[in-house]
Amino acid sequence: MDARFVNCYLKGAQAVFKTMLRIELEMGRPTLKADRKASGDITGVIGFAGDKRGSFTISLRGECALTIYNAFTGEDKKEVNEEVIDAVGELTNIISGQTRLELEKIGFNISASLPTVIIGKDVDINMITKAPIITLPFSFGTNGNAGEIFIDFSFE
Amino acid sequence: MDARFVNCYLKGAQAVFKTMLRIELEMGRPTLKADRKASGDITGVIGFAGDKRGSFTISLRGECALTIYNAFTGEDKKEVNEEVIDAVGELTNIISGQTRLELEKIGFNISASLPTVIIGKDVDINMITKAPIITLPFSFGTNGNAGEIFIDFSFE
Repeated sequence: MDARFVNCYLKGAQAVFKTMLRIELEMGRPTLKADRKASGDITGVIGFAGDKRGSFTISLRGECALTIYNAFTGEDKKEVNEEVIDAVGELTNIISGQTRLELEKIGFNISASLPTVIIGKDVDINMITKAPIITLPFSFGTNGNAGEIFIDFSFE
Repeated sequence: MDARFVNCYLKGAQAVFKTMLRIELEMGRPTLKADRKASGDITGVIGFAGDKRGSFTISLRGECALTIYNAFTGEDKKEVNEEVIDAVGELTNIISGQTRLELEKIGFNISASLPTVIIGKDVDINMITKAPIITLPFSFGTNGNAGEIFIDFSFE
């Protein structure tokens, strides 16, 4: 694993959460992904092409998606609906964009596909890659609601 | 919808099935995707970047994936396991590559991400796009086993 990639995702995710949501994300210890299960029940997937071919996913629980959605919009939604799903897609997009800026700084020119958002508990999400898949666990606490977000990525 | 894109996917998918599997794919009527459900229980997802940003998915039932896997390998597998899932990822990859060749012929230079394979019945797979999502239904009959494959795509 190239520690610089971890750093790009860390910086990318933290910058987006801080700027857009005033949420301070803390990263736990990166691990090699051992299973193929989604870590949450809502997972945004985006693909990378260009200097490096890869995939990345952001996975979170419904409650966490609602916390983020409500923090951003000022609403008080209680259920995950199409708007929340679209917002997770947009979040995937924005973190991907911010991370790509970080990747550019270390010399990789990468473009991103449209995001896809997968809904379902215990869904198997298999990145088909010969490269290792890295999981970055993030957490935050805001207004008494704690949240966990998992970013998985792989570059060939 | 640009009919030329439909044609690129049609040619791409048919060429791959004919060359690799000696299977003649027939395409039914393309439709605008109205819901967000996966059409099968195994879905390969790949993202596109470059001249056009997009996503495409191939969705099929487990039995159909086994028919294809067994046709390709000469094996007689009865259950979807990791090898079959990887093969669906590879198939997604190869059809994406062949379709990109067709897209190049009409002037679009596009690169593809790594594939992801989603396993689960009735999983919600939401392409986050403002462009329409087109579904192409394909069918084939081989050795007495009929199969159905759905290709969805969207380009912004």
